[in-house]
Amino acid sequence: MSKSITPQSENYNTWYTDVVTKADLADYGPVKGTMVVKPYGFSLWELIKETFDGMIKKTGHVNAYFPLFIPKSFLAKEAEHVEGFAKECAIVTHTRLKVDSNNRIVVDPESKLEEEVIVRPTSETVIWSMYKKWIQSYRDLPLLINQWANVVRWEMRTRLFLRTTEFLWQEGHTAHATAKEAEEETLLILELYRELAEDYLAMPVHTGFKSESEKFAGSDRTYCIEALMGDKRALQAGTSHNLGQNFAKAFDVTFQTKENKEEMVYATSWGISTRLVGAVIMTHGDDKGLRLPPKIAPYQVVVVPIFRDVETKKRLIKYLAPILSSLVDKGVRIHEDWRNESPGFKFNEWEMKGVPIRLEVGPKDLEKLQVVIARRDTGEKQFIKKEVIVEVIPNLLDLIQKNLFEQAKIFRSENTHSVTSYDEFKDTIKNKGGFVLCGWDGTVESEEAIKKDTKATIRVIPFDESPNHLKCIYSGNPAKHQVLFAKAY
Amino acid sequence: MSKSITPQSENYNTWYTDVVTKADLADYGPVKGTMVVKPYGFSLWELIKETFDGMIKKTGHVNAYFPLFIPKSFLAKEAEHVEGFAKECAIVTHTRLKVDSNNRIVVDPESKLEEEVIVRPTSETVIWSMYKKWIQSYRDLPLLINQWANVVRWEMRTRLFLRTTEFLWQEGHTAHATAKEAEEETLLILELYRELAEDYLAMPVHTGFKSESEKFAGSDRTYCIEALMGDKRALQAGTSHNLGQNFAKAFDVTFQTKENKEEMVYATSWGISTRLVGAVIMTHGDDKGLRLPPKIAPYQVVVVPIFRDVETKKRLIKYLAPILSSLVDKGVRIHEDWRNESPGFKFNEWEMKGVPIRLEVGPKDLEKLQVVIARRDTGEKQFIKKEVIVEVIPNLLDLIQKNLFEQAKIFRSENTHSVTSYDEFKDTIKNKGGFVLCGWDGTVESEEAIKKDTKATIRVIPFDESPNHLKCIYSGNPAKHQVLFAKAY
Repeated sequence: MSKSITPQSENYNTWYTDVVTKADLADYGPVKGTMVVKPYGFSLWELIKETFDGMIKKTGHVNAYFPLFIPKSFLAKEAEHVEGFAKECAIVTHTRLKVDSNNRIVVDPESKLEEEVIVRPTSETVIWSMYKKWIQSYRDLPLLINQWANVVRWEMRTRLFLRTTEFLWQEGHTAHATAKEAEEETLLILELYRELAEDYLAMPVHTGFKSESEKFAGSDRTYCIEALMGDKRALQAGTSHNLGQNFAKAFDVTFQTKENKEEMVYATSWGISTRLVGAVIMTHGDDKGLRLPPKIAPYQVVVVPIFRDVETKKRLIKYLAPILSSLVDKGVRIHEDWRNESPGFKFNEWEMKGVPIRLEVGPKDLEKLQVVIARRDTGEKQFIKKEVIVEVIPNLLDLIQKNLFEQAKIFRSENTHSVTSYDEFKDTIKNKGGFVLCGWDGTVESEEAIKKDTKATIRVIPFDESPNHLKCIYSGNPAKHQVLFAKAY
Repeated sequence: MSKSITPQSENYNTWYTDVVTKADLADYGPVKGTMVVKPYGFSLWELIKETFDGMIKKTGHVNAYFPLFIPKSFLAKEAEHVEGFAKECAIVTHTRLKVDSNNRIVVDPESKLEEEVIVRPTSETVIWSMYKKWIQSYRDLPLLINQWANVVRWEMRTRLFLRTTEFLWQEGHTAHATAKEAEEETLLILELYRELAEDYLAMPVHTGFKSESEKFAGSDRTYCIEALMGDKRALQAGTSHNLGQNFAKAFDVTFQTKENKEEMVYATSWGISTRLVGAVIMTHGDDKGLRLPPKIAPYQVVVVPIFRDVETKKRLIKYLAPILSSLVDKGVRIHEDWRNESPGFKFNEWEMKGVPIRLEVGPKDLEKLQVVIARRDTGEKQFIKKEVIVEVIPNLLDLIQKNLFEQAKIFRSENTHSVTSYDEFKDTIKNKGGFVLCGWDGTVESEEAIKKDTKATIRVIPFDESPNHLKCIYSGNPAKHQVLFAKAY
């Protein structure tokens, strides 16, 4: 099977799909819009998941599991929420198949449900119906619950990891006694998302909040981390919502305060998904395939021994054993590739799969008490003396992690443009891509007009905005915010 | 909220539900038959999951994720399989809601799917449709893939953890080049299930295989681990299926052998589920609530400090800090309960939640440089000198783990009856319960007749059976197998 892929410059979308499939990350499922996460892609997701799971547990959150099925009536309880999800949900109407008179398997009409059931697109409604039972007093607060789950949003345009009918995610749902606490929680999670993206995925992100039209259906305010992909389109990589009292009101969830008053509970919700795998591919990938940040790479080092005969193979095994075992003791994730394929074939495959370091060793290295190391991020190769390997590799992994982050920051910085006229704005969006930084008057009208003209949307109103003295790029009126526009996934 | 529960002797079913709800393990979801796994119950499941995940990874298995949705036509491809699942599946027929003329949210008839989609009751069909794409040659084998997922079987009679419409499980699906390899895999997994049950859940199990009528729909042979619950009913705790070439045939999955021949692939599948949480409750629980085996207890030690004033509280914090930190360093999972509730209230709560060791400490213990330790399994209390706590507790946890297993083994042995006449058989099933060991002629007729008479089924044909010289308990004909009958969950 050939592992060559379409170059990014030729067709970025095809390049992306080539990488996903040829690096064995994912495949298309049989039902339109569904995805199979293959073992290599799943172990990448598992590492992201374990990292974030550790972060939220350390900050006092706990995991639980809520049902996949939501009564249709629940979705309707929060007006904006149903609006946001009604058009793309999977609806269960029957519960039995039978054999018809033509000996075909058909849905048994007698098994029709009285009330249809929705496959969760997100779990606010089912969770708040439970919180109503669980919350009586301020003593029951805060509730800091997360779940790792699958959710379904019926999609017509599929893109593996980025847009699929079913995807995996975590959804946190917290309940608080005060608005202040809910806001602090929302921001704490946003900071954890930033840390995950920058310190683990090596993906620089802008932090800030969404405009009214881009926020989550049912939230008071949506905060987000926003990244820039290799084709200069933006990608929303995580969102943290302050839901105010909207869901408490919809599900009538009140609590008794310390002062013996009855009050509505405050809520947050927040999520990241397998979409992050897509983000990693598009932040770091090149024409040879994936480039994985060491911290989330299933294999940090792949060992490719070079041998033609069994005798050499035996000597290499003996030579490598103590080295690899010391590296494993240091927590390095290693894969040894002893298959009977040519070194060139293996090099290509592991480059495609983005393993940060390739460790080659052949008969000559054995004599010279050395190994050859090749970096996936830069392509550099170097000889390393046997006795220092155990020191060099962990340091090099750190260096690669940092270098990937620096490269991505430079790319983002080179592709962020400050503009002062609408013509310049349109030209930049159309011909350059990337983030466009400019003033916005805060009106839906300007936002909509710009979207209609250019397909660019406000990705984020950054925390570090400086709107003073700016004018709206569209209306020319004084700017309310300095924002980042881009075309987005 | 009162934490007292119905005694087992009064009503075992009510006792069970009381424990599940009052120990905060689970709650009923809004859609009939669904379950919410609450944080305490979920962390118990997480520990079981992590344990087994480690076992399968060590034996070369990898995780992946396959879609929730299966085309209706797939289910029908394996005849026995569709028979087994058609009567209890959730069927998605539409993908959009809309507002009708009465301003109500209704299913949009225009969103009807061309082919209905089934929510997976198990994933053999969707996985084998993918394996057809992935397997060409013997080089692609074996495939040793597992997934942790939710599955749905529409249930009318709900029992939290034991029988719910949706449940969480792992399902392994492996593909092999030879029948021998598939059989070895099936038995390897059964052994891991036995290890998990006995060495971690402290739950003795019989290992063996199922009769034809009790096996999995689509398998050649189903192996199982079978346990005995506190009410003397049996529970199937895990199954490992040798699927032969049934699914390869249904999905036309062939491979090229080393000898360049075309052959059908051999398959296995195997699963354990959140049902194991129910098994733990019913194996070890008593009238005070849960008793958790230390290896899977979310908290192995709960610290209940006894104080009335802030000054004492401060001194206790200082006294406990180095002790607890040493225990944490030893890997002990500890929870400190500093709430302003009475010690009695706390004792009851943590007994209900089954924490293996309670560590009490008050002003007097502080002076005497000691703590009080209470075992949940035996109720024994003892004073422990401060300087030996860090040695005593890990040893005591081991002892409790072993003691729970021994208690359960004694209970099972006391409730396993060898019988030689059918009258005795019926009397035992009706009046004593437990496992009944006897001969069976191997015919469906005898099996069915016994089930009709007594509701008892063949739970397992144990590996260590001795059928020689036995007669069938029903027909009086020579026994083909020595089997364990019981009424079961």
